[in-house]
Amino acid sequence: MEEGIAFTPRFDGDGLIACVTQDANDGQILMLAYMNAEALRLTLETGVAHYWSRSRQMLWRKGDTSGQVQKVKEIRTDCDQDTLLLKVEPGGDGGACHTGRRSCFYRKVAPGGDKAKLVFD
Amino acid sequence: MEEGIAFTPRFDGDGLIACVTQDANDGQILMLAYMNAEALRLTLETGVAHYWSRSRQMLWRKGDTSGQVQKVKEIRTDCDQDTLLLKVEPGGDGGACHTGRRSCFYRKVAPGGDKAKLVFD
Repeated sequence: MEEGIAFTPRFDGDGLIACVTQDANDGQILMLAYMNAEALRLTLETGVAHYWSRSRQMLWRKGDTSGQVQKVKEIRTDCDQDTLLLKVEPGGDGGACHTGRRSCFYRKVAPGGDKAKLVFD
Repeated sequence: MEEGIAFTPRFDGDGLIACVTQDANDGQILMLAYMNAEALRLTLETGVAHYWSRSRQMLWRKGDTSGQVQKVKEIRTDCDQDTLLLKVEPGGDGGACHTGRRSCFYRKVAPGGDKAKLVFD
């Protein structure tokens, strides 16, 4: 599992694996999404990122509506093979977030005990 | 949810939220782990990363045994607040992976249809 060369991705009880997606050009973390076995297979076969939408419960080729198609430059997995890391070249406007921002992680948490707030930047 | 300043992290059915952890110094992605509400509370209160170990089913202060204590420099959340991004300064040997490597993502997937293999680098 940890030292082998066999790719044996571990899907969770819902048949999903977490996938961190990073811009191949500057390393910015764009999004976190999930793949099922079919999304992973299609990603490997086509070189374009496919995900499983948990909210819509459907296979999703990123960019089909937004134009933000993600060309996969590299896929990594972690020690226990329950996470994937994709390095991609984003198409369209170069972004990944449906809000129009480049990255989904556009807010910082400002700690404050039970009253933590978010700060945009 | 997407445009507000209220921090309302969305834990999944198991009470967990995915957390991507990145080295604050150079942006390398070190690991992906999960937090429950208590781990998140302790992380916010102490400024040191706490996680929930799914395999051991216990709260886990990263570095307690390895010395790889993670000092939290920044916490971000994504558009739908179901993922966290931590930027940390790793203590000890500066690594995060229990295999002794700096990052858990030490293997690339070499596509090959049904026979994808892993490559160390």
